[in-house]
Order: sequence, then C-alpha cells, then structure tokens
Amino acid sequence: MQNLSVKEAYDRIHSHIHQTAVITSSFINDHTGASLFFKCENFQKGGSYKIRGALHASLCLTENQRSKGLGTHSSGNFAQAVAISAKLTNTKAYVVMPSNAPAVKRAATLGYGAIVEECEPTLQAREETLAEIIERTGASKLHPSNDIDVIVGQGTCAYELIVTHPDLDYIVAPVGGGGVAAGTILACQQHSPNTKVIGAEPEQADDAYRSLKEGQIVPSVNPITIADGLRTQLGHHNFPIIKDGIDQILLVSEKAIIEAMALVWNRMKLVIEPSSATTLAAVIANPEVFKEKKVGLIITGGNVDLSNLPF
Amino acid sequence: MQNLSVKEAYDRIHSHIHQTAVITSSFINDHTGASLFFKCENFQKGGSYKIRGALHASLCLTENQRSKGLGTHSSGNFAQAVAISAKLTNTKAYVVMPSNAPAVKRAATLGYGAIVEECEPTLQAREETLAEIIERTGASKLHPSNDIDVIVGQGTCAYELIVTHPDLDYIVAPVGGGGVAAGTILACQQHSPNTKVIGAEPEQADDAYRSLKEGQIVPSVNPITIADGLRTQLGHHNFPIIKDGIDQILLVSEKAIIEAMALVWNRMKLVIEPSSATTLAAVIANPEVFKEKKVGLIITGGNVDLSNLPF
Repeated sequence: MQNLSVKEAYDRIHSHIHQTAVITSSFINDHTGASLFFKCENFQKGGSYKIRGALHASLCLTENQRSKGLGTHSSGNFAQAVAISAKLTNTKAYVVMPSNAPAVKRAATLGYGAIVEECEPTLQAREETLAEIIERTGASKLHPSNDIDVIVGQGTCAYELIVTHPDLDYIVAPVGGGGVAAGTILACQQHSPNTKVIGAEPEQADDAYRSLKEGQIVPSVNPITIADGLRTQLGHHNFPIIKDGIDQILLVSEKAIIEAMALVWNRMKLVIEPSSATTLAAVIANPEVFKEKKVGLIITGGNVDLSNLPF
Repeated sequence: MQNLSVKEAYDRIHSHIHQTAVITSSFINDHTGASLFFKCENFQKGGSYKIRGALHASLCLTENQRSKGLGTHSSGNFAQAVAISAKLTNTKAYVVMPSNAPAVKRAATLGYGAIVEECEPTLQAREETLAEIIERTGASKLHPSNDIDVIVGQGTCAYELIVTHPDLDYIVAPVGGGGVAAGTILACQQHSPNTKVIGAEPEQADDAYRSLKEGQIVPSVNPITIADGLRTQLGHHNFPIIKDGIDQILLVSEKAIIEAMALVWNRMKLVIEPSSATTLAAVIANPEVFKEKKVGLIITGGNVDLSNLPF
C-alpha cells in the first residue's frame, strides 16, 4: 500500500516549489454570485501544478533509482515539470517529445536541462522510444497522472488552498488524466472533509463524465477541445479515488471555456490556459450549485501559445 | 503652493485602493542580470494605477466642489479611473469619450456608473464638450497627468514599492503624459533619495526625451507606437519635476516593447499593457545600466484589447 498522505508529500516538496498566490476578484464574485478563490498554479515553477507530482515522485525514489534519471513522454506541461524536478533533485531528465510538439515547449524543456528525444507523433512511437531509453539508462518512468506518488503530489495544491482557506464549500478542479482531480479529493478527504470536490470537463472531452456514469474507465477517443491539457483519459490508479470521492463532474462548452478564459485575462490580468478556465466556466454555467458558496478553483497553469489565442 | 507630500496622499487614498503585489521572476532576473521588482498596477482597481491620482484629486476637493461631480475627457484608463473615483467618493463622473474609443473601454466606464458623453474624435471636440458639461454642472475638471493632486496621487504607487523594498537602486517608470514619472520622482525624493528614477519612452513617441534635451516641452505630434498610454505629452505641472529629478530617459523600440510584453506574459503569466512593457524593455536594452542592480518597475496597467494583440 502506497502512502496517500498529502501532508507528507507537501512536507517533502514545499521547500522546492512556490506556495502560489490565492487571488480573488470582486467583479467576478459579483458576476457569479459566489465567493471564488483562484489558486494560481500558473505562477508555479514551469507554469503549471505539474511539478508538484513530478517532484514528489522523484523524491519518493530511492537514491539509487533517482541517480539513473527520470523518464517520461509528454508534449505538454509534464515535460517541463519532469525537467525541473530532475534539476532540483540532481538527476537527469529524459523527455520523449513528438516531432509535432510546439517549438516553445521543446525549447523550455531543453532550457531546464532535459535530454529531449524526438519521435514520431504517435502514442506507440512515444511509448517505444521511452521504453528504449529506460532499458538503456535505468531511468524511472513517470506518468503524468496515473501514478500514486504523482497524484498525491498534485494534491498538495489543494492542500495549500485548504490550509489558507479552511472553510470552502467546494473546490473545482479540471479533469483530464485525473491526477489533479484525484489529488484534490485526497487533500479534502484528509484535511477538509466538508469541502466537496467538483470536476470540470469539456463537453467535447467528456470521457471522465461518462466513466463515472458507466462505473468504468471510458477511453478518450480523439477529443477536440481547446483545453489541450484535458485531452487525456483516466487511469486505474486515479479512477477509484475519483469514483469514490468526487461530488460530480460538470461539463462545459468550448464557448464557455473561451469566455471564462477571456474574463480572467481581462478582469484579473492573469494569463491562464484553457484547461484552467473550465473551472470558472463550470461555476458560471451552474449558478444553482455555486450561488453564495465559497469555492476554490484550481487554476492549473498558464502555458499558452500567444501566437494562437482564441480571442 | 500645493501639497506635494506623497505620504499624505497615500494616507488619504490607501483604504480605497489595492496595495498591489510586487512580483519577481527568477527567469527574467537571470535573463537581465538584474534583480527586478514588478509593481503590479495591472491588479489595481480599473486595471491601472490611474485611480490613485484621480481619487486623490477628488479627495482634495472641498465637499461642495466634489458634490458637483468630476469631469474628464479620455479614451483610455483615466476614464475608468475617474468613474471609479466618483463612485468611491459618492459623486458623479462625467466622461467625454471620442466616438472611436474602444467599445470595451466605453462599456467598462459605463459599468462603473459614469455618465459618458460621446463626441467627435478630435481634441477640440473633446475639450469643447467637456467645457460645456462643466459650465452646466459645475463639475471639477481632472487632467490625467498635468495636475499636481493627480501627480502626487500617482506617486503613491512608487511609495508603496519603496516602503516594501527600501533599497532599490532604480525605479523605472514609463513616460507618457508625465504623471506617473513625476509622481515617482516625488516619492523617491521624499522617501528614498538614493533611488534614481529612470523614464522609459518609446522611440516613436520620444517627446519627453527631446523635451529634456531642449529644456522645454516639445509637443508630441501624431506618435505611432503600440504603447497607447504613452502617446500624450508632458505638461507644465509635471515637466519641472521631471526635469529636476529624473536620472535619464531611455528610449525603446517597438520591437523591444512587444518582446518584453511577451516575456512577461509567457514567463510571469501577467497580462500587462504595452506601455508597462517599456520599463522591462529599457532594462533589457541597457544591461550596462542595470546589471547587478535592484530595480523597481512600475507596471502601470493591464488593459489590452485581447482581440488585437501584437503576438
């Protein structure tokens, strides 16, 4: 049985990461009728919460394991998170990136000192290239969401929010691969049992919503959503936690995601990515749930391509 | 002789405004070789520092004067600032806006409760329309930069920065109409005499730079710069303060402004407007001035049109 203590994970990682700001907006509170607390992981190292889980998983390895490096395949935020985590824990990062990954993300990952290996843009090529690297180097494979140490690490974000704001009625977290949703549930179960966790998911990538309905993991097949961080699917490590602990998943339209994102950019002057905006979109679309409630929103990150904005 | 005490202005306004965050970026510090402190007035009420001066000017009026309202003409941040200031001091705001003002700024100004009067988009029409309103209502005319009470109010931004960061070598402020530059100089003269104030100005709107060279106000004639807040010119109230107290004005190219703006959006996840980015652009372009120095940057605002970005 692996250790599920979010507090212990926090104790391991907190000196290496930013305790990110919690920001409010009286305009958006008036607009929604709720009292919203934006937990700003866009300010986190690497621009997203992902470092929490990657770093925690690295610190949970034995020294001998860690010395051989960390390996992952990713075209997104987890690549940078693993690169920074390796740097912070004095080891190497091997990151497999598909050849169509955005140049800016590749450059950032390289900038943090990772060894980046390019491959064909298929899941099979990614898995095979990573397997070959792990075979050769003995590096430990990190999964961005379906790994208990990663999940518990992601829970430290909600843990920080709970500690500073102990009486939240809800925390809304985006649901993609399920890592931050499951981590948020663990944090609330362990430290704020009266806080309900609600998932926000794009209508056009509703595999987690359907998985809950069907009681088993439904695959995500070519989801088309602007929320690029939420195109992934749940895994066997996080699904039981989500199934057991989530209050509900609210679906949001692409239009609502873009409008919520613009609202935060315009009114709060924060650069947040579309995946993060699903949380506010869910609040705006469901006033009957959130009216007069104190609600934490996990703003998962701020990594966007400025040359390709939806406004 | 009017009261130039920035501390007294701060005492008058501080309970009505946000004490805005000061944010750092280790990435940008590494990139510039300097230690930079971003004073984030993009988080201020109305999305810019302008409320500081408008509110202070309103609070300096007699009760009888104030009861007749505040009047200004503006197509930019000062319109919203006057609208909010009127609301905070329980009076009316009369704002003359040219018919080509961005709809979003007009809507925001109306949203804060101002009475907005449209006019032809010429300076003459703006002045005449405002004069007619003032004649009719007895409202007090507020100038966005060439008014001592406004200037001293704008100085409260640097005052807050100095109080929290007492040992800055430099503060860099954008120079447009000269209000925040002059206010920053007063704040440093009164509370941190070892901190030098540097102005940042677009090469393509370099009237303040030329005014300093010539020892008199040089008009700004159709400046073409993305820094829309800096297309204005100095006035007889702020020019003597600037001439007396500024260390130097550094000119920045349009390309450097856009690059600095993108750097802040990408790395700090902050929405800042082009005028604000001139400060970082000046630091990046002049490493010989700023290397290993502690530098405050006045991030004047974050009001941008998301549908018309330069990226």
